Amino acid sequence: MKARLYAPGPVEVPPLVLEATARVPHHRTAAFKEAMLQVREGLAKVACVPGEDVIILAGSGTSAFEAGLLACVPRGAKVIGLAAGKFGERWVKLARHYGYAVVEHAVAWGRDFDLSELAPLLRAHRDAYAVTVVHSETSTGVLHDVAAIAAAVREVLPEALVLVDAVTSLGVTELRPRDWGLDGMFAGSQKGLLTPPGLAFAWLSERAWASERDLNPSFYLDLRKERAQQRQGQTAYTPAVSLVMGLKVALAMLLEEGLERVWIRRERLSRAVLAAGEVVGCRIFAERVSPAVAALLAPDGLDAPAIVKGFAARGARIAGGQDHLKERLFRPSMMGYADAYDAVTVAAILEDVLRELGRPLPYGAAVGAAMRVLAEA
Amino acid sequence: MKARLYAPGPVEVPPLVLEATARVPHHRTAAFKEAMLQVREGLAKVACVPGEDVIILAGSGTSAFEAGLLACVPRGAKVIGLAAGKFGERWVKLARHYGYAVVEHAVAWGRDFDLSELAPLLRAHRDAYAVTVVHSETSTGVLHDVAAIAAAVREVLPEALVLVDAVTSLGVTELRPRDWGLDGMFAGSQKGLLTPPGLAFAWLSERAWASERDLNPSFYLDLRKERAQQRQGQTAYTPAVSLVMGLKVALAMLLEEGLERVWIRRERLSRAVLAAGEVVGCRIFAERVSPAVAALLAPDGLDAPAIVKGFAARGARIAGGQDHLKERLFRPSMMGYADAYDAVTVAAILEDVLRELGRPLPYGAAVGAAMRVLAEA
Repeated sequence: MKARLYAPGPVEVPPLVLEATARVPHHRTAAFKEAMLQVREGLAKVACVPGEDVIILAGSGTSAFEAGLLACVPRGAKVIGLAAGKFGERWVKLARHYGYAVVEHAVAWGRDFDLSELAPLLRAHRDAYAVTVVHSETSTGVLHDVAAIAAAVREVLPEALVLVDAVTSLGVTELRPRDWGLDGMFAGSQKGLLTPPGLAFAWLSERAWASERDLNPSFYLDLRKERAQQRQGQTAYTPAVSLVMGLKVALAMLLEEGLERVWIRRERLSRAVLAAGEVVGCRIFAERVSPAVAALLAPDGLDAPAIVKGFAARGARIAGGQDHLKERLFRPSMMGYADAYDAVTVAAILEDVLRELGRPLPYGAAVGAAMRVLAEA
Repeated sequence: MKARLYAPGPVEVPPLVLEATARVPHHRTAAFKEAMLQVREGLAKVACVPGEDVIILAGSGTSAFEAGLLACVPRGAKVIGLAAGKFGERWVKLARHYGYAVVEHAVAWGRDFDLSELAPLLRAHRDAYAVTVVHSETSTGVLHDVAAIAAAVREVLPEALVLVDAVTSLGVTELRPRDWGLDGMFAGSQKGLLTPPGLAFAWLSERAWASERDLNPSFYLDLRKERAQQRQGQTAYTPAVSLVMGLKVALAMLLEEGLERVWIRRERLSRAVLAAGEVVGCRIFAERVSPAVAALLAPDGLDAPAIVKGFAARGARIAGGQDHLKERLFRPSMMGYADAYDAVTVAAILEDVLRELGRPLPYGAAVGAAMRVLAEA
C-alpha cells in the first residue's frame, strides 16, 4: 500500500531533500562551512529576517524555545504565558520548570486570544519580563495573531520580550518577526521547512540578544556560544550534518518558489481540506484558522479516532486530537511536500472513510468542494 | 576527485545506513515505534547492557553528557573531573558551568592517568559525589582505562558515581559499563555507530537512576522524562526520525559482524595506520593507544598541518591536532565504514604526502608496514 503522510509534522520530505541528507561531509571542511553559511542565509530569508542570525541547533523545536528563553530572560523574572492549546501550555510548563514567576493566561482550546482581555492582564503585570505565545497552535489549528499581540504588549509593557513558538508557522504562513516587533522566534526542521526532524532554529531580536545574561543556565543550549561559532560557518558542538545538507536543498526549493507563493499555496490547500470537511458534516475547530493544519471536528455521531483509523487503513497518516480532544478532533495537514492533488486525495479519503462509517455521501461531494477552492485564481 | 573520510567522526557512513535515513515515517506510527524499540534493543546490546535503557536524544554527544550529569548529580555537589585532553576539559567546564564544586585533575595531553596519583586525590575528596572521565580521548588518541579508574574510585569512594564519555569508544573498543561498575555512559551517533551526527545516547546505572533528584534542571535534556516515553517506543519530543531509521540499520550491521569482531577489526586497522606512521618517522602520541584514532606526531622537521593538507589534496579528510597540538599532531581514524584497504590507503597517502614534503621514502615503505599488521591472524 502506498504510504501518504498528511500529519502536521514530521511532514513528507521532497525526494531531493532526502537525497541531500545522504551526504555527510565532515563538519570541519570548507564544503560544510559553505553549506552552513548558505543555510544561514536562506534560513534568515525564509524567516523574513535577511542577514540576521537564525541559530541552528541539533534538537527538537522544544530545545530551541528552551535555549531562547534561557538566553534572554533572567532567572526568577516574571513571564506571562499565553496558552490556548498543548504547545502554549508546554511553554508555561517550561518557564515554571526553570523557576520563573509564571502568570498563565489560558483560554479554551480552539479559541483565539481576545486582545481586550489581554490589555488588563498586561496592566496587572507591569513587571513582566517576557510573554510567551504560540503563532500556529498545532493542537487546535488556530493561528494566533502574534503581530497584534506583540503590538498590544508593546503598548502596555514596552520593555517586555515577546517570545513566539513558530514551529508550524515558519515557512507556512506570513511570519515577520522583525516587522512585527517579536523578540524571539523558535521553530524546527520537520514542518514548513520540509526537512526530517532533528534541527531546531532560534532567532532573537537585537534587544533580546543585548539582554545581559551572566551565564546561560544550559551548557548545550547556549545561543550566544552558537552564534559566535555559526557566524564562522561552524557550530559549538557537532552539528546534525546530514540534516543541514537536506535543509540547504529545502530552503532553495522554498526560495525558488517564492516565500509568498508558498504561503498562498499552503493556505489554499488547507482551506480546500477544510471545505471538504465542512461539506460532509465536519466543523472547523479553530476560531482563527492556521494553514498549517486543518483541525476538524468529526461529524455528529462519529468518533474522530475512527476517521483517523480509516485514513490509516488507506495508507494515509493524519493526526488525531490531543488530550481532551482525542475523541472529537482529527487533523490532516498540507504543510509538507503537498500540491493540489494531495488536498484532493485527503478529500477523497475522507469521503470514502465516512461512507464506510455509514454516511451516505454522493461520490465526489467532498472532493468537489475541495476542487472549487483549489480552482480559485 | 574521490572523497574519503578518515576523520575521528563524523565518520564514513555505510550506503545502506544512508539509504535508511531517507525514510521519515511519522513518529507516532506503529512502524516508527517498532523501529525505536528495535533500536533500543540493539543499542543496549552494542553498549553491553542488554535489556537496559539507553536513552536516545536529538542532540550531540555533549547534550547526552549534560543530561546525564544533571540527572544524577545534585546541584552544588563536588565533582572530580579527570582531564587529559580537550574532552576531559569539556566536562570540567560543563560541571563548573552548572555550579558544581569541581576538582580538576589534569595530566598532560597524551598521558594516561596514573592510578597511584589518583588514590590520594580521591582520599582528599571523600565528599565527592561524582567523577567524570573520558574513555577514548579523541584529542590525544589515548584510551583511558575506565574499568581500572572505576575500581579505584569504588575502593576509596564507594558511593561516588563514575560518569564516562564514551563518544569514541562505544562500538569501537571493549566497553562494559555494567561489568566495570560505571554509572553513566554517554555517546553520539557519528562515531563507532556509523550513523550521521544528530543523535546522542545516555546510559545510567541503577543507582544513578535511583539518585533522587527533585527537578531536572533542564526541560529538554531530561533523561527520566525520556525513559518513561522511550520504554513505550516513543520520545518526549519529536525524535530525529530519519537518523533513528539509519541507526537501526547500522546497529544490525554491527551485531551481524559481532561486537567483539568489530572491536578486533578496528583495533587492527588503527594499529596498521600507526605502524605505517612509525616506519616513516612519525611517533605515536598516546601513552595508551585508543583504536578510535591514530594520533601521530609529524616527523621531525615537518608541520602536521602540511600533512593534513596533503591528505586533503588527495581527497582524504583526516583530523589535525587540537589546541596546542595543532602544529604537531595529525589524526587519521579507522572508526567508520573502513576495512583493511582503507588502512592501506591511509598508509599510501601518508607516503605520498611525505615524499612530496621532501622525504625520500621507498615506495611501499609505509604500506608494507601497515600490511604486515593487517596480515596478522
